[in-house]
Amino acid sequence: MRLLVLSILLPVLATSRIIHGDIKSNEIKEDECILPDALRQEIRSYETVANTIINSLVNGKYKGGTYKELAKFVDTFGARVSGTENLEDAIDYALDLMKEYELENVHGEEAQVPHWVRNHEIGELISPRKASLPVLGLGSSVSTPDEGIEAEVIVVNTFDELRSENVSKEVKGKIVVYNEEYVSYGETVQYRSQGASEASKLGAVASLIGSVTPFSMSTLHTGWQNYEDGVTPIPTACITKEDARLLQRYQDRGEKIVVKLDLSYTRYNDSTSRNSVGEIEGSTDPKKVVLVSGHLDSWDVGVGAMDDGGGAFISWYALAVLKGLGLKAKRTLRAVLWTAEEPGLVGWEEYNRTHFEELSNFTFVMESDEGTFTPLGIEYAAGAEGGCIIQEIVNLLAPINATQAVASKGGVGSDISAWTSHLIPGASLLNANEKYFWFHHTQADRMEVLDPDDLDKATALWAVVSYIIADLTEDFPRTRDNAHSNMVNVIPT
Amino acid sequence: MRLLVLSILLPVLATSRIIHGDIKSNEIKEDECILPDALRQEIRSYETVANTIINSLVNGKYKGGTYKELAKFVDTFGARVSGTENLEDAIDYALDLMKEYELENVHGEEAQVPHWVRNHEIGELISPRKASLPVLGLGSSVSTPDEGIEAEVIVVNTFDELRSENVSKEVKGKIVVYNEEYVSYGETVQYRSQGASEASKLGAVASLIGSVTPFSMSTLHTGWQNYEDGVTPIPTACITKEDARLLQRYQDRGEKIVVKLDLSYTRYNDSTSRNSVGEIEGSTDPKKVVLVSGHLDSWDVGVGAMDDGGGAFISWYALAVLKGLGLKAKRTLRAVLWTAEEPGLVGWEEYNRTHFEELSNFTFVMESDEGTFTPLGIEYAAGAEGGCIIQEIVNLLAPINATQAVASKGGVGSDISAWTSHLIPGASLLNANEKYFWFHHTQADRMEVLDPDDLDKATALWAVVSYIIADLTEDFPRTRDNAHSNMVNVIPT
Repeated sequence: MRLLVLSILLPVLATSRIIHGDIKSNEIKEDECILPDALRQEIRSYETVANTIINSLVNGKYKGGTYKELAKFVDTFGARVSGTENLEDAIDYALDLMKEYELENVHGEEAQVPHWVRNHEIGELISPRKASLPVLGLGSSVSTPDEGIEAEVIVVNTFDELRSENVSKEVKGKIVVYNEEYVSYGETVQYRSQGASEASKLGAVASLIGSVTPFSMSTLHTGWQNYEDGVTPIPTACITKEDARLLQRYQDRGEKIVVKLDLSYTRYNDSTSRNSVGEIEGSTDPKKVVLVSGHLDSWDVGVGAMDDGGGAFISWYALAVLKGLGLKAKRTLRAVLWTAEEPGLVGWEEYNRTHFEELSNFTFVMESDEGTFTPLGIEYAAGAEGGCIIQEIVNLLAPINATQAVASKGGVGSDISAWTSHLIPGASLLNANEKYFWFHHTQADRMEVLDPDDLDKATALWAVVSYIIADLTEDFPRTRDNAHSNMVNVIPT
Repeated sequence: MRLLVLSILLPVLATSRIIHGDIKSNEIKEDECILPDALRQEIRSYETVANTIINSLVNGKYKGGTYKELAKFVDTFGARVSGTENLEDAIDYALDLMKEYELENVHGEEAQVPHWVRNHEIGELISPRKASLPVLGLGSSVSTPDEGIEAEVIVVNTFDELRSENVSKEVKGKIVVYNEEYVSYGETVQYRSQGASEASKLGAVASLIGSVTPFSMSTLHTGWQNYEDGVTPIPTACITKEDARLLQRYQDRGEKIVVKLDLSYTRYNDSTSRNSVGEIEGSTDPKKVVLVSGHLDSWDVGVGAMDDGGGAFISWYALAVLKGLGLKAKRTLRAVLWTAEEPGLVGWEEYNRTHFEELSNFTFVMESDEGTFTPLGIEYAAGAEGGCIIQEIVNLLAPINATQAVASKGGVGSDISAWTSHLIPGASLLNANEKYFWFHHTQADRMEVLDPDDLDKATALWAVVSYIIADLTEDFPRTRDNAHSNMVNVIPT
């Protein structure tokens, strides 16, 4: 659907400013990039500006500012769940902040968003021994009946195993537990998003997944899930990886496993939320837009400092710094702080609908939603020529060692991914986020995951890249080679 | 007290078999060790035996056995808290296991142990915003009154800050929160063990500590604490490091912090538990004992797989392997699985009392209570000559890369530390335990912390070292230079 709509966008054909060999690796080798001298010189002429931005954040007036503002924000509001008043209060606060820092055209844009909350959740191991079984429901899960569900457990490792002849006939009336191996988030998250539906098709009364994470300290990782059309919705939650392994061992020993679940959730009617917008209007070409973004909503566990407070705050704060330094680009710089990313890019969907006519003016779109750890550079979906331009730009980030330009394999961004998969060049923050999924959607998503210096550098990178792209004489090239044939995974990260 | 009692032990003077230079580093350099040829040759003659033991565990009959038995044990009993029936059931099971593997003289030895349990614990942040404040009481804490305690919070980083003129006068009627930096367990644990007493002296109504850990995923780390004589006992618990930092930030911003605590614990009368013992009797000198040990009791969060299921199980399983291989040493090999280590080495204290006369026959004592991660060798408190002997022995562990012999700085073992600080040579398992305190006394102390291959290797190392020391022609030398002038910290690890 989205693919269809977006494909009618008129591609602005890439001018042929580049000669390059086959790019085998993800990284652009400098000698594969032969940019026109004029363009290369133009980018290099921003060195002083880039250094001014960097210095203001690393040593100067704005040092520590991103962390300080973010800490105050998350300490004040905590978790910011789609559909709640608390999220709306947080959005008001963010809009006020952007005004305080003198961004322009600061306003909210309405979107109808889901409102799912957990009331109580109790999991108990009944057999082979009595013990608490901590559970954390998956977003949109239905409740158990008032008396709960007490049922035998069947543990599987994969969907294939679930559907195998021997196992599938044993599922009816049982609780299916997925003790899946973590391969990567993109691959493993299918057990979270589709586990309940697949179990329900075979007559399961509930489903549980081992939390989707490469590392666990008995940590529960929630996340949205989807019931397939026509399938009976069954209650579904995550358990710890440790407990998934425990249940597997019981099963391997031939012990009968019985679990009791008392899960209560409420799905309210959709309510009105807002995407938060602030700008620095372009000096000569204000209709053209370079967009930087992150999402303001969070899960209800932890405080969403990492996911995605960091991404949202480097976005608006990058503009605040540019504004404070008196830097106005030719094109408009726009920060969008998405709402309701977690329940499925819902804020973005509405924004995409209402701004559809404007999309042809989107020169470049950026989103940070996979951590703001030590920044390394830019991951882009911008075509080979675009990659060369980005490489030339991030060379200016040498003072903070963030000079990598890496072509994305699977599309960049979460909210912006449908755009970047379809002609609009875009980028996300390349950062040392090896541990991102340790904390993702857990109680451990707290300010302590973030580092003030890293945030300064990430804001500097965000400001330098977006400013230069917004200010270059020629528009950033739109090329077809960044258009992926498949829609990227719509499960938000 | 202990120091006094132990100091009357007759030291068996070290024979002078060694010439060595100043040992500057902790590691014995081979060229600093000049052992008599006969002794060196004797130790080297165990190479075949060592390889047999190693092979039986790494490739052979006993491969995976330590993990398998430990997993079954912790999966069956879960946490094993001092004073509970569940611990006694677990002890019965362990005794049966040792009998099943044909250890000799298998029996329990009674000890009176504390019995403290948590009933319920609720922490709430009331101001500056309403939020849950997860708490986990510290062992021996008193309860709050039935209506709970709601009080203003004062955050300090150190005891010095608490006692400073400006702060100390503000403490009365408040909840003291220690937001201490983690330096090392040994140093930082004082905030856990003495925090309540120090706060109470200044009129605090309760105290909370940021959990004692180098790494947190919003993880709560409990542990025993002590009320000083004459001080009013006040309720005390840990909070996450993240929340300690949060409260610090609120205080730094001048915001008024109010917390409500509803903590309910019961301290029952001491009850009878048992240290579990199994042996392989010595062939020629059965009264002399080489002791290997770990503790069976655990905290009530997690399942005590790491602390100290691993240490207890490599100890008895090492003897099971030796027995299965038909290896009988000259001296008696004795596995002791301590009870009630967590509430303060209580099982060991009773054992020490009842075995006081026998201590002069203890040739060597070993304990593993700081993890059974990848084994690296042996940490010893055995004097310089003893170190050289141990180095020669662990050279035989080359097939599993566990050849390090490191002199302990602060004494080895938890239960055995008073012995090894006072003339009885001893050792603990040197292992890659950098992450030990991540999991220590938390819900994350689960089987998944441990690795089957690492446990095989640890058991092999434990068996090889204890067997050779128990079988050498001459007794392991007792030297004074391993006697520390200070008692080691009596807070158990």
